[in-house]
Amino acid sequence: ASTKRGDHGKVQELCVYEINERDRESPAYLRLSQKQVENALGDLVPFTNKVIPSSSPISRHFFLLQVRREPCGTKILDLVVFSNSELLRVSPQLYHGNLKKRLGITAGLCVLIQHVPEKNGDRYEALYSFYFGDYGHLSVQGPYLTYEDSYLAVTGGSGVFAGAYGQVKLQQLIFPFKLFYTFYLQGIPDLPAELLGAPVPPSPTVEPSPEAKACEPHHAIKNFTN
Amino acid sequence: ASTKRGDHGKVQELCVYEINERDRESPAYLRLSQKQVENALGDLVPFTNKVIPSSSPISRHFFLLQVRREPCGTKILDLVVFSNSELLRVSPQLYHGNLKKRLGITAGLCVLIQHVPEKNGDRYEALYSFYFGDYGHLSVQGPYLTYEDSYLAVTGGSGVFAGAYGQVKLQQLIFPFKLFYTFYLQGIPDLPAELLGAPVPPSPTVEPSPEAKACEPHHAIKNFTN
Amino acid sequence: ASTKRGDHGKVQELCVYEINERDRESPAYLRLSQKQVENALGDLVPFTNKVIPSSSPISRHFFLLQVRREPCGTKILDLVVFSNSELLRVSPQLYHGNLKKRLGITAGLCVLIQHVPEKNGDRYEALYSFYFGDYGHLSVQGPYLTYEDSYLAVTGGSGVFAGAYGQVKLQQLIFPFKLFYTFYLQGIPDLPAELLGAPVPPSPTVEPSPEAKACEPHHAIKNFTN
Repeated sequence: ASTKRGDHGKVQELCVYEINERDRESPAYLRLSQKQVENALGDLVPFTNKVIPSSSPISRHFFLLQVRREPCGTKILDLVVFSNSELLRVSPQLYHGNLKKRLGITAGLCVLIQHVPEKNGDRYEALYSFYFGDYGHLSVQGPYLTYEDSYLAVTGGSGVFAGAYGQVKLQQLIFPFKLFYTFYLQGIPDLPAELLGAPVPPSPTVEPSPEAKACEPHHAIKNFTN
Repeated sequence: ASTKRGDHGKVQELCVYEINERDRESPAYLRLSQKQVENALGDLVPFTNKVIPSSSPISRHFFLLQVRREPCGTKILDLVVFSNSELLRVSPQLYHGNLKKRLGITAGLCVLIQHVPEKNGDRYEALYSFYFGDYGHLSVQGPYLTYEDSYLAVTGGSGVFAGAYGQVKLQQLIFPFKLFYTFYLQGIPDLPAELLGAPVPPSPTVEPSPEAKACEPHHAIKNFTN
Repeated sequence: ASTKRGDHGKVQELCVYEINERDRESPAYLRLSQKQVENALGDLVPFTNKVIPSSSPISRHFFLLQVRREPCGTKILDLVVFSNSELLRVSPQLYHGNLKKRLGITAGLCVLIQHVPEKNGDRYEALYSFYFGDYGHLSVQGPYLTYEDSYLAVTGGSGVFAGAYGQVKLQQLIFPFKLFYTFYLQGIPDLPAELLGAPVPPSPTVEPSPEAKACEPHHAIKNFTN
């Protein structure tokens, strides 16, 4: 009747792609600053995107909705609300097979903390979750940097991810259309085989399979989050 | 001097009701979309509510403040800030007694991710905490679905909940007035007896006791969060 | 190949100062209510601040940007987005030395839940992270009370903080310019010596060293978050 966290201390890797398909009316920027041309500290950016399998992710179409423009006299921070596509390269065996499955979505919000001119990018603070259909979800909190890889904390999960902890590496392939995540998970039993397998090596050109994109049978997990 | 997480690996259940009493000027919607009639993706909804005991929760009065209406050309996401009532059916013995105690409040925010027309409901991403007076708090992150039960991750806690992990089941009884939560907690010592006991079975008709609602002596935990 | 959480169950203390230096255009309030004079439930307050060493923190200049004023008929909740300075009193040996180092920043958001008139203060719900340069980050979730100490949950971390759990005590020295944090961390290997050491006892008059403030060599951790 007892489940000790230490029983599942081993690190399990889980790789997913996150793709924006432009079909969820997301993201939308709520601009809080006077800047017109580019995102400014202070913009509010809610967005959401459909979720498709990651092995060969389709290109994600990031679109920006200028929600409003306020006569404020200074730049402030961006608040970003989003839900993105999340894809997984699944092979029943490591390094074998070409199975590609649709998993679900990401959902949450992030805040633009800082524009980093010398790196031509931005620092966001992010709070969001990854949804894997009937398997449950993983929640994360931490930095999203548009100019280099970053690591976020895994704060917990549900279903097969209940009690999960560890961290996740975020790699941006095409800002902000394609992202690749590598979870380093502890505290949970062995992951379902359907979620494991060697990923397609991350690159800006990877695309999801048409079957996964179309959510055909055997190309999506059960009750994948849509 | 060492506290191993594994020492407290057993799962402890904790049941609370969350009731909106309409006395905290919450929730308030910040609408970011043009829709007038109903909540739309893009609305900002901050809200807060008083917290009362859960054994027989009073009806929660959800009220909506239309904060503003923007001339934006598309639907976007809802940002929802809230603090709700949280009630607990407490019996010093399982299945015995009628003790009903006021515990505290919930506080946090959630984001409307998706309207699900076929289920006549919505998907929110939620980030909030449950406050239990001097006992401390529990924080959660994950899905809030208005059309079916969902599980959120327990991300941590303070006081008697320091080091807590696991998940919590969210059951909506009357949207959005009455909710019932079952925490499955690990990583912590035995919960105080005052927080344990058989809950009143969740149903839309349960109401808190008048004594708990009035925060009378012995009907509220010590320094209950108000 | 296995890392059990129980291996690192001992509690490690980590003390940092958080100082607002007024150089990050933060915080900014997005007011959602009609109140003009003071912060009201419903104001949105994004802010960010530089991060400097905590041993003798400089005074933090909190400034408020009134972003907009809406014709809404009621008070609602504050949404607060912020990134603050974070300072650490570092001594290579416990209780010895005067080393003062710049560490990084805090970043995140908080929501004003409740004004507490009898205590002349406010309750916020906070979600943010502490950044420690190349060492990684810690994320927290929970209460920020402007009138008394509070404890937040440690939800996780990255780098040397990967797998961290526990709680953190927040002490406000000068609202909202100087804060002192004591982390009680579990789940991680021994912290780097550079982050340990006796802190300068928290008081409203403590100031960071000029060298740390200027980020001189040996007065900042490697690649401190700026």
